[in-house]
Amino acid sequence: MKYLVHMDVNLPAGMPAEEAAAIKATEKAYSQELQRSGKWPEIWRVVGEYANYSIFDVESNDELHGILQGLPLFPYMDITVVPLAKHPSDVK
Amino acid sequence: MKYLVHMDVNLPAGMPAEEAAAIKATEKAYSQELQRSGKWPEIWRVVGEYANYSIFDVESNDELHGILQGLPLFPYMDITVVPLAKHPSDVK
Amino acid sequence: MKYLVHMDVNLPAGMPAEEAAAIKATEKAYSQELQRSGKWPEIWRVVGEYANYSIFDVESNDELHGILQGLPLFPYMDITVVPLAKHPSDVK
Amino acid sequence: MKYLVHMDVNLPAGMPAEEAAAIKATEKAYSQELQRSGKWPEIWRVVGEYANYSIFDVESNDELHGILQGLPLFPYMDITVVPLAKHPSDVK
Amino acid sequence: MKYLVHMDVNLPAGMPAEEAAAIKATEKAYSQELQRSGKWPEIWRVVGEYANYSIFDVESNDELHGILQGLPLFPYMDITVVPLAKHPSDVK
Amino acid sequence: MKYLVHMDVNLPAGMPAEEAAAIKATEKAYSQELQRSGKWPEIWRVVGEYANYSIFDVESNDELHGILQGLPLFPYMDITVVPLAKHPSDVK
Amino acid sequence: MKYLVHMDVNLPAGMPAEEAAAIKATEKAYSQELQRSGKWPEIWRVVGEYANYSIFDVESNDELHGILQGLPLFPYMDITVVPLAKHPSDVK
Amino acid sequence: MKYLVHMDVNLPAGMPAEEAAAIKATEKAYSQELQRSGKWPEIWRVVGEYANYSIFDVESNDELHGILQGLPLFPYMDITVVPLAKHPSDVK
Amino acid sequence: MKYLVHMDVNLPAGMPAEEAAAIKATEKAYSQELQRSGKWPEIWRVVGEYANYSIFDVESNDELHGILQGLPLFPYMDITVVPLAKHPSDVK
Amino acid sequence: MKYLVHMDVNLPAGMPAEEAAAIKATEKAYSQELQRSGKWPEIWRVVGEYANYSIFDVESNDELHGILQGLPLFPYMDITVVPLAKHPSDVK
Repeated sequence: MKYLVHMDVNLPAGMPAEEAAAIKATEKAYSQELQRSGKWPEIWRVVGEYANYSIFDVESNDELHGILQGLPLFPYMDITVVPLAKHPSDVK
Repeated sequence: MKYLVHMDVNLPAGMPAEEAAAIKATEKAYSQELQRSGKWPEIWRVVGEYANYSIFDVESNDELHGILQGLPLFPYMDITVVPLAKHPSDVK
Repeated sequence: MKYLVHMDVNLPAGMPAEEAAAIKATEKAYSQELQRSGKWPEIWRVVGEYANYSIFDVESNDELHGILQGLPLFPYMDITVVPLAKHPSDVK
Repeated sequence: MKYLVHMDVNLPAGMPAEEAAAIKATEKAYSQELQRSGKWPEIWRVVGEYANYSIFDVESNDELHGILQGLPLFPYMDITVVPLAKHPSDVK
Repeated sequence: MKYLVHMDVNLPAGMPAEEAAAIKATEKAYSQELQRSGKWPEIWRVVGEYANYSIFDVESNDELHGILQGLPLFPYMDITVVPLAKHPSDVK
Repeated sequence: MKYLVHMDVNLPAGMPAEEAAAIKATEKAYSQELQRSGKWPEIWRVVGEYANYSIFDVESNDELHGILQGLPLFPYMDITVVPLAKHPSDVK
Repeated sequence: MKYLVHMDVNLPAGMPAEEAAAIKATEKAYSQELQRSGKWPEIWRVVGEYANYSIFDVESNDELHGILQGLPLFPYMDITVVPLAKHPSDVK
Repeated sequence: MKYLVHMDVNLPAGMPAEEAAAIKATEKAYSQELQRSGKWPEIWRVVGEYANYSIFDVESNDELHGILQGLPLFPYMDITVVPLAKHPSDVK
Repeated sequence: MKYLVHMDVNLPAGMPAEEAAAIKATEKAYSQELQRSGKWPEIWRVVGEYANYSIFDVESNDELHGILQGLPLFPYMDITVVPLAKHPSDVK
Repeated sequence: MKYLVHMDVNLPAGMPAEEAAAIKATEKAYSQELQRSGKWPEIWRVVGEYANYSIFDVESNDELHGILQGLPLFPYMDITVVPLAKHPSDVK
């Protein structure tokens, strides 16, 4: 089941550089593990922004929320979720 | 080069049913040809709306505009385009 | 799996009264059948508006889209869908 | 009398972790007591957000405001309230 | 129980002048009867607009929706409703 | 001359509790004096928000601005003002 | 007493050219009479739009609404009104 | 003196194809004459939309409004104008 | 050449009172000098807000930006600028 | 390939003046080098704002993101990007 997710990152101005670097490294590992598992099949950077659009492929709303809430950057992101359905013109 | 495209369809209230059916059939064929060519790799229905989110993979802004402007439903759609870049956490 | 759905109805000004009455009657029957099936457990009128907030309980995004697209008033409604997850404070 | 309430939580960046944990624990107890009393029959997490949609069932606008203002997280939430009426298609 | 209600009127461009005059006359009678009953204690014109802000004083959300839905201009208005509670500084 | 005024209060997160209590007490006294004078005939709490809708009855725009600017909470509020006129259906 | 008024004109697509010309001529005469009376001291075209910003100088909210409602283009305009007060830095 | 101008075209659904073609041809000639004169140095299509962003280089606000109001498509466009100044980092 | 300018002032919560008073005094002197020069012919307070609407009368976009950027409160204001043209109904 | 880019700068209130000056100097050098390379052919100040509109001319979305992300002011800017295509009326 697919969802389009937009994540917009806003780190607090006063966060120390090392703390920011540590969170980003953990975030990257967390994201890549989920990508490899097939649950996070696509991630793109939005040109000009510290933001991404991603596709998630999960079993339920609850599973998606669990994944998103577990993101190390979760407290610093505005996230919006659009549930997707199969399109009748889709050739796949 | 990837772009996220949102298409929101608004057919005029007075359009005859056969005309609407004909436009939709042409649209479907046009879309599926582009999907098979690799230029329109993803299309999803937005749940609850007569709208889709799509990914396009083209050579340039001009090529993308040419494709979108050629959509049979183009005069009846509100389209927004978000240019995408490779994300540093992308494992692909 | 729960979703909060907002439906805002806008019938065209020129629709004949009998046609409007017929669509509304079909809509009511369609809605009540789904309510009785357990897939549409809640429906409330928004005070002062020709709109409703509803809770749907379905197996997937695709099932929800199928139900909403099948609404007789679908061509005349603006629909927005919010996917819901279990809340950690929920006592049920 | 039903109301749909949306609560969006924004804890200040600098709040100490123990203080945040204490407020959340008090909030949970307060919410669960109201759920058990029947005044707060439904609470759902919005997928991807630190927010909830809830249904309240109270006697009056004043009673609802008293409950919401008493939430331990009240100073840190943006709350919106939609009054609901019985829907003519409701089978209950 | 008080509610602030905003009504914004948009008559269709093609409505015949007599039809418009008849609806407005019925609306005025309906409004004045409710004002005299105490259920619609205040109505003000918004300067420069074909719109009003009103205060309603009713027993429940359902009663308010019944009154608003019964307005002869209901099909031609955008209505928003804000539930009000007693203010702790109110001297009355 | 009537105006509808919306006041939305946002106290800074770091304001000491005694300072907040002192400002609120001064605000209450200021408001109640104006209510008793007839210049601030109505004040209601917006359900679920630290905000109010009020009616002011003053001689001029300048008088209204003077009153609002004198509110002890003025530096911490977003205020919007809607000028009101007599409604042709008003029975008073 | 001054007000800033924004008027945005939207003539219906199907209005006959002569009818449009007649309304505009009446509007111009009405506006110029009010300008000469001192009640409408300023009117400017918004660059690129069929819209204007104007300053009105009247005795009351009711007088302003009467003037605006009397505009021949009133049924075809979106009007917003901002009440103005004397600025403490004003040298006049 | 430079201005950034956004033009969004909305032709009425019922406009006959020949009428639309005639207006577009006149628009093109009008635009190209102004481009050659140096007053309209840049025009770009917004990807996916029937809209353009343009740069105008004129002597005054009045001259710009005269040019825009003279566009054959003016009655069918939403136009927004942003006045531009020299940027301190500009190397030209 | 006229422009309508809206200035919305937001002083940081932590600015010392003397610093705020000093900036406001400098701002007032700066504004009054420009008013006397004829370049800033009108300034009004927006009722209920720490904001003003002003008319500027300058030679060019560059001159206007220079004036606005020179305002002592410039770093603490949200400014929007609307270029104005002569209105065909203006009697002056 | 052209893009219209809007950059809106918001330096934190507490940033020391020397730090701000140093970042701005680096930003200016970075911008001017890109302007001279032909990749950033236009930059204009938005009148009244600490913001610019720019035209970029690059090979791909990825190249544009790399340039924008490298801006010394990137962490302090809200950036929006509009992809542009050749306009059919363009005489160049």
